[in-house]
Amino acid sequence: MFTLYYARNTCALAPHIALEHSGAHYRAVRVDFAQNQQSSPEYLRLNSKGRVPTLVTPRGVLTETPAILQFICQSFPQSGLAPLDDPFELARMNAFNSYLCSTVHVAHAHGRRGSRWADDAAAIEQMKNKLPENMAACFDLIEREYLQGPWVLGEKYSVSDMYLFTLAQWLEGDGVDINRFPKVAGHSLKMAQDPVVARVILAEQSAA
Amino acid sequence: MFTLYYARNTCALAPHIALEHSGAHYRAVRVDFAQNQQSSPEYLRLNSKGRVPTLVTPRGVLTETPAILQFICQSFPQSGLAPLDDPFELARMNAFNSYLCSTVHVAHAHGRRGSRWADDAAAIEQMKNKLPENMAACFDLIEREYLQGPWVLGEKYSVSDMYLFTLAQWLEGDGVDINRFPKVAGHSLKMAQDPVVARVILAEQSAA
Repeated sequence: MFTLYYARNTCALAPHIALEHSGAHYRAVRVDFAQNQQSSPEYLRLNSKGRVPTLVTPRGVLTETPAILQFICQSFPQSGLAPLDDPFELARMNAFNSYLCSTVHVAHAHGRRGSRWADDAAAIEQMKNKLPENMAACFDLIEREYLQGPWVLGEKYSVSDMYLFTLAQWLEGDGVDINRFPKVAGHSLKMAQDPVVARVILAEQSAA
Repeated sequence: MFTLYYARNTCALAPHIALEHSGAHYRAVRVDFAQNQQSSPEYLRLNSKGRVPTLVTPRGVLTETPAILQFICQSFPQSGLAPLDDPFELARMNAFNSYLCSTVHVAHAHGRRGSRWADDAAAIEQMKNKLPENMAACFDLIEREYLQGPWVLGEKYSVSDMYLFTLAQWLEGDGVDINRFPKVAGHSLKMAQDPVVARVILAEQSAA
């Protein structure tokens, strides 16, 4: 039994979809950022970084989206959500997930979380100004190089598709029209029509 | 046969040590950032992100340090540089590596690469000002929670030790005294005395 702590409109959507898709027995617990629940003593005991996702397993607690995603794939190998038998293909999957985590997510965070990297209000505003340009550059690279089609890794559907879908949902709020990237836009549309994905989104949006 | 493209004083040191430690048949090629070789047409054909490390394998090109590290471990399982038979421990290793990549390395990058996230010179200066505080916060978390001792994962030496050692070398230049973190300082000293590590550092510093 796993417990996933998530917040709405965050990267925790990716492991949430992965758990649902894998047929895992799991519980999803909402962390309400508007009420600053990620900074409560109870939550910080689980994840002192005060971030989501956090996955509680019978063996202990895991954080960091790329690590959690591969762990879900390895825990439910029959779901076929990663090329576990091919180290090179697995590395390609992890390289993409790492790029999303360390470059795309980081670019996005400069829009609302600039105070992580500067105290000065004018500097934080300058980071916001550059946000659309940086997010567009990231998705331009994804469109040209990473997204092979129909899925990120080509013919093989994987957790990278869930992770890409999750971050692509942020484009509009970051001032970038997803239709500048036709392959990404088509991928997101196809993902949104997947009943598993729709069920998870509904669960996140309707949770108290 | 693998070819690793690295630059001095970058995170590419971690996979360089991993290759040397694993007994891999490999070639290390220096990319001279001072001459902007990472932006040459030849290099951009390999890695359009213009970053290091890049690992060229018989199957194709890999980027992103956490993905490359796990790939080296899986390619040379006899070297025992990752808990490959235990998905939970492997996830702990990858969670740590992902934290280094997406939080610690990103914090560091705001010292010299602030122009990635803002155009304004004053804003870039503000990011530099916050650098020591952010790097210290990262290493405080590593000291308190991640570094179990004697190695990152406890008794088991892994590529996480190489990656931690690599980023800990940046503390002094970022204005943070490593001795504020006794476990990290002791870990770095022990790593520096490892003949494999010393050999790789010498090779990087003496390469034309």
